[in-house]
Amino acid sequence: MDYPEALNELVESLQQLPTIGPKSAQRLAFWLLETPEPKALRLSEAIRSARREIHPCPRCFNYSDRDLCGICSDPRRRAGMLCVVVQPKDIVTLEKTREYSGHYHVLGGLLSPLDGIGPDKVRIQELLDRVREEKIEEVILALDTTVGGEATCLYLSRQLGSRVAVTRLAQGLPAGGNLDYTDEVTLGRALRGRRRVEDLSER
Amino acid sequence: MDYPEALNELVESLQQLPTIGPKSAQRLAFWLLETPEPKALRLSEAIRSARREIHPCPRCFNYSDRDLCGICSDPRRRAGMLCVVVQPKDIVTLEKTREYSGHYHVLGGLLSPLDGIGPDKVRIQELLDRVREEKIEEVILALDTTVGGEATCLYLSRQLGSRVAVTRLAQGLPAGGNLDYTDEVTLGRALRGRRRVEDLSER
Repeated sequence: MDYPEALNELVESLQQLPTIGPKSAQRLAFWLLETPEPKALRLSEAIRSARREIHPCPRCFNYSDRDLCGICSDPRRRAGMLCVVVQPKDIVTLEKTREYSGHYHVLGGLLSPLDGIGPDKVRIQELLDRVREEKIEEVILALDTTVGGEATCLYLSRQLGSRVAVTRLAQGLPAGGNLDYTDEVTLGRALRGRRRVEDLSER
Repeated sequence: MDYPEALNELVESLQQLPTIGPKSAQRLAFWLLETPEPKALRLSEAIRSARREIHPCPRCFNYSDRDLCGICSDPRRRAGMLCVVVQPKDIVTLEKTREYSGHYHVLGGLLSPLDGIGPDKVRIQELLDRVREEKIEEVILALDTTVGGEATCLYLSRQLGSRVAVTRLAQGLPAGGNLDYTDEVTLGRALRGRRRVEDLSER
């Protein structure tokens, strides 16, 4: 049986979404047809509004629906500290820890020379400008611990090292972690990064 | 951190969808913000068009974007046979078998007196009218083998039995099924529904 054209198109446009395969796309399409109309149109309108209203914050490149984003325009945030992340959703993840009260800088990607992503393809120049103009004292690199993340950390610390303190997230055992189940690279880094017990209890 | 309002609304309207939890909704929302704009707007528009253009076929209640649906308006479909299903997507599933060339009738639900779903809440009157008007010879009940499905089969066969042949889908071992792993209800039905080997080879 041929689906009506509009239903085909709905299934196909749902299949574009990440992690949505043909079966899920079909199930979601039928739901969108069968649910009360306002629910379906709510999603349609939400996509349209989000694309119309949300843009990158001109200072930190986080998502914003105003001029500056919620964090850049919050006077309670601590000045002089920048946390560098790859993408806006990393900010959400970090904010959930409630351990950081400075500002952010969204790079937009990791350096990857093999894929043609050099320093000019991510927002490194913008970061260097901000460090100078905003009198930044510490830059925290909150990047993935992958090859690309390590390469980007190295590059940024060379670019920034002479002007500000550059730190990166600690590597080691996860909370609730079990020595038995920890791979040797993580364990090696946890050993090299070991801290005196009195230092920890000070926190 | 507060999300921009339009992003919150996008996450929430994605979370309405079945099988999409808060984490998936967030991931899909970020994808919809980061993907090239035409891809995101394609989904928004597809939802809107589907709701605008697709309606139930006035004869069989399958989805249609024309007056009659693709199956009702296809002259090659065999007249005189009706296959009764609960919902339009069951038609897609049955059509994939390529074993049936008659028409369909979408009930819209199973009888469930405890939930207040009596014969007047599903399209049984419409079915009785069609059986009379379209000179139907056989009605195939392709319903779930759940309690509600069984009750609906029983009710329909009583309503229809005197006018037409009423059949239902065979119950038994699934293709590739293993006796070891078959529950006793299924196995019991497979035994009661056993067929002579020569009958099967005739197919």
